[in-house]
Amino acid sequence: MSIKAAIVGPTGYTGFHLIDILLRHPSAQLTYLASHRDELPDIRDEFPALLGRLDEDIAQCRPIDPGAIADQADVVFLALPHRAAMSYAPKLLDAGLRVIDLSADYRLADAALYERVYDQPHVDTDNLDEAVYGLPELNRDQLPGAMLVANPGCYPTTAALGIAPLLSHSLIKHCPIIINAASGTTGAGKKPSELLHFPNHNESYLPYGIIGGHRHQPEIEQTLSLVAGKPIHTLFVPHLLPIDRGILETIYLEPTDPDVTEDELFEAYEDTYADEPFVRVREGLPNLKHVTGTNYCDITVRLTRQGDRPTIVVFSAIDNMIKGASGQAIQNMNAVFGIDETTGLV
Amino acid sequence: MSIKAAIVGPTGYTGFHLIDILLRHPSAQLTYLASHRDELPDIRDEFPALLGRLDEDIAQCRPIDPGAIADQADVVFLALPHRAAMSYAPKLLDAGLRVIDLSADYRLADAALYERVYDQPHVDTDNLDEAVYGLPELNRDQLPGAMLVANPGCYPTTAALGIAPLLSHSLIKHCPIIINAASGTTGAGKKPSELLHFPNHNESYLPYGIIGGHRHQPEIEQTLSLVAGKPIHTLFVPHLLPIDRGILETIYLEPTDPDVTEDELFEAYEDTYADEPFVRVREGLPNLKHVTGTNYCDITVRLTRQGDRPTIVVFSAIDNMIKGASGQAIQNMNAVFGIDETTGLV
Amino acid sequence: MSIKAAIVGPTGYTGFHLIDILLRHPSAQLTYLASHRDELPDIRDEFPALLGRLDEDIAQCRPIDPGAIADQADVVFLALPHRAAMSYAPKLLDAGLRVIDLSADYRLADAALYERVYDQPHVDTDNLDEAVYGLPELNRDQLPGAMLVANPGCYPTTAALGIAPLLSHSLIKHCPIIINAASGTTGAGKKPSELLHFPNHNESYLPYGIIGGHRHQPEIEQTLSLVAGKPIHTLFVPHLLPIDRGILETIYLEPTDPDVTEDELFEAYEDTYADEPFVRVREGLPNLKHVTGTNYCDITVRLTRQGDRPTIVVFSAIDNMIKGASGQAIQNMNAVFGIDETTGLV
Amino acid sequence: MSIKAAIVGPTGYTGFHLIDILLRHPSAQLTYLASHRDELPDIRDEFPALLGRLDEDIAQCRPIDPGAIADQADVVFLALPHRAAMSYAPKLLDAGLRVIDLSADYRLADAALYERVYDQPHVDTDNLDEAVYGLPELNRDQLPGAMLVANPGCYPTTAALGIAPLLSHSLIKHCPIIINAASGTTGAGKKPSELLHFPNHNESYLPYGIIGGHRHQPEIEQTLSLVAGKPIHTLFVPHLLPIDRGILETIYLEPTDPDVTEDELFEAYEDTYADEPFVRVREGLPNLKHVTGTNYCDITVRLTRQGDRPTIVVFSAIDNMIKGASGQAIQNMNAVFGIDETTGLV
Repeated sequence: MSIKAAIVGPTGYTGFHLIDILLRHPSAQLTYLASHRDELPDIRDEFPALLGRLDEDIAQCRPIDPGAIADQADVVFLALPHRAAMSYAPKLLDAGLRVIDLSADYRLADAALYERVYDQPHVDTDNLDEAVYGLPELNRDQLPGAMLVANPGCYPTTAALGIAPLLSHSLIKHCPIIINAASGTTGAGKKPSELLHFPNHNESYLPYGIIGGHRHQPEIEQTLSLVAGKPIHTLFVPHLLPIDRGILETIYLEPTDPDVTEDELFEAYEDTYADEPFVRVREGLPNLKHVTGTNYCDITVRLTRQGDRPTIVVFSAIDNMIKGASGQAIQNMNAVFGIDETTGLV
Repeated sequence: MSIKAAIVGPTGYTGFHLIDILLRHPSAQLTYLASHRDELPDIRDEFPALLGRLDEDIAQCRPIDPGAIADQADVVFLALPHRAAMSYAPKLLDAGLRVIDLSADYRLADAALYERVYDQPHVDTDNLDEAVYGLPELNRDQLPGAMLVANPGCYPTTAALGIAPLLSHSLIKHCPIIINAASGTTGAGKKPSELLHFPNHNESYLPYGIIGGHRHQPEIEQTLSLVAGKPIHTLFVPHLLPIDRGILETIYLEPTDPDVTEDELFEAYEDTYADEPFVRVREGLPNLKHVTGTNYCDITVRLTRQGDRPTIVVFSAIDNMIKGASGQAIQNMNAVFGIDETTGLV
Repeated sequence: MSIKAAIVGPTGYTGFHLIDILLRHPSAQLTYLASHRDELPDIRDEFPALLGRLDEDIAQCRPIDPGAIADQADVVFLALPHRAAMSYAPKLLDAGLRVIDLSADYRLADAALYERVYDQPHVDTDNLDEAVYGLPELNRDQLPGAMLVANPGCYPTTAALGIAPLLSHSLIKHCPIIINAASGTTGAGKKPSELLHFPNHNESYLPYGIIGGHRHQPEIEQTLSLVAGKPIHTLFVPHLLPIDRGILETIYLEPTDPDVTEDELFEAYEDTYADEPFVRVREGLPNLKHVTGTNYCDITVRLTRQGDRPTIVVFSAIDNMIKGASGQAIQNMNAVFGIDETTGLV
Repeated sequence: MSIKAAIVGPTGYTGFHLIDILLRHPSAQLTYLASHRDELPDIRDEFPALLGRLDEDIAQCRPIDPGAIADQADVVFLALPHRAAMSYAPKLLDAGLRVIDLSADYRLADAALYERVYDQPHVDTDNLDEAVYGLPELNRDQLPGAMLVANPGCYPTTAALGIAPLLSHSLIKHCPIIINAASGTTGAGKKPSELLHFPNHNESYLPYGIIGGHRHQPEIEQTLSLVAGKPIHTLFVPHLLPIDRGILETIYLEPTDPDVTEDELFEAYEDTYADEPFVRVREGLPNLKHVTGTNYCDITVRLTRQGDRPTIVVFSAIDNMIKGASGQAIQNMNAVFGIDETTGLV
């Protein structure tokens, strides 16, 4: 079986990684690149690293023509900015394509929440109701055959995989959950800015955004609330690292049972992830360098005490470009089409 | 007035920065470098960056001879490893020198605690009782004329300056205090290791040590307990950044009064640090790059809510080599000798 | 067809990349890891990035037992230090294995030269005579069926690919050829050193070694002399970059014909590399970031004039770990076994 | 004596370093910051690192009013872009100020050459004739009392100091002189660009510009031609490093006398620079990290042979922001006002 795949909006970093993975995928082939730019680019001019790997006819971006894409592809990845994604998705779905959306447009099930967080109306609530949140570790059952998959955000993937086992095993109080996150710079996208001008950001490290108000926080809370069966509140504080890739979250939680042991905590993780191909529950402390370039999420947990009071510390790490974006999108594609989820990803 | 200064153990990074600052200090002069190595090094071979800045007779390290040092210096900086410092300090004090110790040997007032944390007996408890903990912002009164100053650790300096105003103004509950710290690599010293081999650490980020059990945690708690007037417990989680210099701590605390406002929090900082030359209470978020190379500590505070529950987030940042070590040592020297604390440091 | 592959000495960086590529190779499988350490390591402890990708029975290194290796493998990669490689190669060859050696032991055809450069006797001159120098772009004909392949050095690969077309087309004078090279740090290996201690090397850049006397220089000259049909002398000056991976060489040459045009120079490259899957002759200037993580060599050429005098400047760039080591070793394996050279490498 | 100094255009990186050095300078004081922006910035908003170091009345930039500046300053530094500098310089000179210009506007003595290189007319040729090229090591005699100093470019400073002794001692042929240069990113200025977007440039290394056609090449050749007493041609090839600061040039030259010894080469350097406070002729190879943050130029030389043919390799390294810009500007100010050149710079 060979899945034919198209990408809409391939000129960003996630587009690059989708192409890179698809070119090595044994059961998929890249058939169509579509751009919404007026001047249609050759993707090799955007990413000279792709020179020699793509034929001329694929490398040259074409218009976003749903019919033409549907003629040549089974599935389309949307690597577009927020808002643009939901403006194209309906037509692509109507043309019969499976859609895997890497933007935020179909991640939040509640359109009103989306509108508050992204400060714009949701224009495709019909499909929003049908979208599957593509975190296979929590949502695998809904993926086979799904028409529209909302690919999770990078911070939410790291947080959800790190926290869910403790919630599902009722090991932690629901508040407070403090998520101290640090990310590489590719997560901020390809557009130059003063903040990420090399001599400004090199040798630096900083918190950013509105502390406690990052757009990924509602997405994290949505997932955790579903797992817990009741509303979960988090405090999410992102920091920017002077590196290209990777997210490591250090998560602080309070155990339900003050006498819980570290072994019991590990059991919850091992129980949850025993058969997961892309979650590695580790005894040692994680290190971004062990996950960059891979689709793995590395997790470990520690039980600490301050005086009599116990605090759980969870470390969860991924490559924001792979498990946090393009790798997970391919994992979702594999699941949608019923092939081994690890195909093309190990 | 010109203070004559010696350095014992100048071949590490803190030694380098002591030399660098002293060479630019308008009221001090470096007169003696002493090494405990068998083969006495020329400091310019250790740090070629110093070539041309030091005369031959100073650059050549001499033995640690208290009498000879006392002949040529008023004050001696100990830039030695733990344990070595307290083996030399008594003789240097006996020779009439003021001693500013950059090791941990005189930081913990309780010798029994020192022995637990550093896993060795304290061999100079007499002087331990007399040592002044050299954090001028909290302890300025005790510095003028002090014979022995324990220069604080880098993480403890950052934490104490970030948390003390909230404690002294009774704005926070005493538990939990979560300190998520990230440091550059110079803090780990000059000895090569697998962890810090360039291709291992570059493009990386990782937690390290025994989570909740770092040696700096008791020092942090000692300072905060003194400020609070009762025992304070913290959870301290250090991470290593792939950069040379700087520490940024993101600190999570629970307010005493759930209706406290962010303005009230800022007032506590402004009240505490209004006249401090080296603490900058900032409205904007701090960035390591704004403090590296300086003796400043940049601090800001945010009030966040998770559902109904408030959490205070404090950001505190310093250069671990300057305010976290050699700069603070010079600030202490200035205070000990009664000259303007900022001399040579702005 | 599935080629069964073993690796002897997999605990270095080249070993890691061999494993990484073999695990994704559709026509090869990794069957045996052998170590000369007394305590046989599990490779996942050396490289936690490999966790989850290798079964226990492969991950656990076994002794270097030629018979046992030959039972389970068709080909063995030697990722050993110089000298160790030639001490094992004869027995592995005798056991019927194809051997691809990533060390320098079989690169220099002249044993006397080897002894001068590596300061030790060559102990396997019999096989030295049979070894094929595995630079497929220059030596493809000798690869199919070869028993012993000497995998080229990283600097020599970059230089040979960059210079050979100008020599073979008689476009340059034979002297001087100046090769100004800059390399990432993985080329220096995994052993910690003062030079590559993170805070020493970060934000740095430096020439190193004996200028004009690097061990790779005779290997470069051997290749170029074969192409030219007469002795070629070069000046090779390596520099170390504060990055993980990649080599970029800036090469200065004097044209035979002072009236040569830049177009004629490009033609020589296009003529030479038109059908090469891993050489990209580019119009634009190369950038290490375009080749890192790939098996490509990017090359461009410029003609400049200083007054009346013309100088050719060639830029040649590879990933030192891939095309400069493990990727080229796999390319050689593919060629030896007669499958498409690009298999597993694009 | 206290020199009162103003800066016009302080919002770039060179402006920051001028302020930083002046604030520590014992015999100078910063009295006026002038900006040509419509909205006059507070410099502390541009560079939060300066918070606490500058009084409000200095930090707030004022208009470029020559009379007002002359009322408060003895000397003005122009840290403006090319073209802007020469539009302000005449009025500032007329107001009686000494002018030290960090732009390129007064570096090339030949206005026609300036016009070719910078592609615009020179609008102040009167003052051009009077301008002193401020490389104190070559031009010290002209500095005391000079009204207008053209502060050299960063690449030209490195090259001139590295090559001049060989030319003045007639040790090298005049062609070819090959300058392979590598620079940190601050040299490219503060304006964000795709090239220097952090995730594009991090872990990279690349040649840039028109090879053999960089704007600094004519400036290099002008200086060397003056030293040689006849026209000198160079091949200048700049590369960009993924670091903040520093330039290291590796320079290839042909000796006049094929039997010259390395000792004779060193003698030329020692002879030239014996009394220079900021040039360190070193036996060991230089390393950018030894010069960053300092006003030093580190130089060493090697004699190599390719077959019978000798080639000289010179390494010359500076901090592009200090000796390559703001530090040298202060050194020039010191020389102009007749105080020790090293004041404020060691």
